Amino acid sequence: MIIGDVIGSVWATRKDEKLNGLKLLVVRPKYTDDLRASFVAADTASAGVGDTVLVTKGSSARSAFGRERIPVDSVIVGVVDSIDIKED
Amino acid sequence: MIIGDVIGSVWATRKDEKLNGLKLLVVRPKYTDDLRASFVAADTASAGVGDTVLVTKGSSARSAFGRERIPVDSVIVGVVDSIDIKED
Amino acid sequence: MIIGDVIGSVWATRKDEKLNGLKLLVVRPKYTDDLRASFVAADTASAGVGDTVLVTKGSSARSAFGRERIPVDSVIVGVVDSIDIKED
Amino acid sequence: MIIGDVIGSVWATRKDEKLNGLKLLVVRPKYTDDLRASFVAADTASAGVGDTVLVTKGSSARSAFGRERIPVDSVIVGVVDSIDIKED
Amino acid sequence: MIIGDVIGSVWATRKDEKLNGLKLLVVRPKYTDDLRASFVAADTASAGVGDTVLVTKGSSARSAFGRERIPVDSVIVGVVDSIDIKED
Repeated sequence: MIIGDVIGSVWATRKDEKLNGLKLLVVRPKYTDDLRASFVAADTASAGVGDTVLVTKGSSARSAFGRERIPVDSVIVGVVDSIDIKED
Repeated sequence: MIIGDVIGSVWATRKDEKLNGLKLLVVRPKYTDDLRASFVAADTASAGVGDTVLVTKGSSARSAFGRERIPVDSVIVGVVDSIDIKED
Repeated sequence: MIIGDVIGSVWATRKDEKLNGLKLLVVRPKYTDDLRASFVAADTASAGVGDTVLVTKGSSARSAFGRERIPVDSVIVGVVDSIDIKED
Repeated sequence: MIIGDVIGSVWATRKDEKLNGLKLLVVRPKYTDDLRASFVAADTASAGVGDTVLVTKGSSARSAFGRERIPVDSVIVGVVDSIDIKED
Repeated sequence: MIIGDVIGSVWATRKDEKLNGLKLLVVRPKYTDDLRASFVAADTASAGVGDTVLVTKGSSARSAFGRERIPVDSVIVGVVDSIDIKED
């Protein structure tokens, strides 16, 4: 999983109907300011802009849903309370 | 998922027959001008050159189709209406 | 798999309930000091901060668990005793 | 999928028997000269050195075969006739 | 698949028991000297340090084993005899 900041949202009217009802948020990985590293994740943790979140990618993203056939490759699975990094 | 711009299309006569009928578009990730970052996605959202699109990658891409055995790893699942990014 | 150093931990109260009980650690790939390369892995090897660990990514990460439907894409599958690299 | 150029081939006598009979080609992604970006793909489209090809990666690569249990993560699924890129 | 050189091995006593008996080798992709690009692969081709090998990654790596539930994402599937690259 990766830690990222929710920096926005995306709207798409014309889309795969299996995506209906999903909130699609733009996430930028923590520790970078480069917008090119940003991506879109479906929210399952009631996250919003400004939140730091935990994101699961790949086929495991589908495991966050009750159904397997959903064309989603990135999911916000948690809202991060704190990160405790100990570097020497 | 990632946001990208459709910048072209690809034609291949000799190909896996499971790809027959698919529209194959060249997508360049948003926020970059580097053609090396471009890739090919199968279109399922009636997208065209100039559209900004939402792309699902990996095994989840196959979930956009009604059948699982299709050698496709990138699918356009939506046409983006607007991106709302709030950066501090 | 990749070799990494455990440099911290992450706390998320609001999260997918399928993640309950998992220890989420921050891992930085070996041979780099760049925090941007760090990621979060679920621990299944009783690892802790300071340990050098072996991490499995992608769908194979789920194979470390007794159940398949878990939204985890990175798992610590071992604690590294020694790395023996022979470079010319 | 990505577009690449076939620049060579690989030979391996001692290998997983499930790879027997496969033609393994070295592909370099289009728009780069960097050999470090090259990779090996199994050919299913009668491609050869000099051809520009369409490559599917990841688990979807296995969908090009009639059997699922094959340790292949990159497959040439088509030979590209033309690429039409419209850049502003 | 990628071509790499076996440059070492890794030892982990405390690990997922599904990894017991596997030889874990450190592989560095061909055409680079950067250790940061190295990774760990399970050997199924009787490879050793100094060998140039063919590595399959991702979920396809599990297809090299007789069982599916194994937390391995990189497998050495062959020992390379020769690479024939024709560049203009």
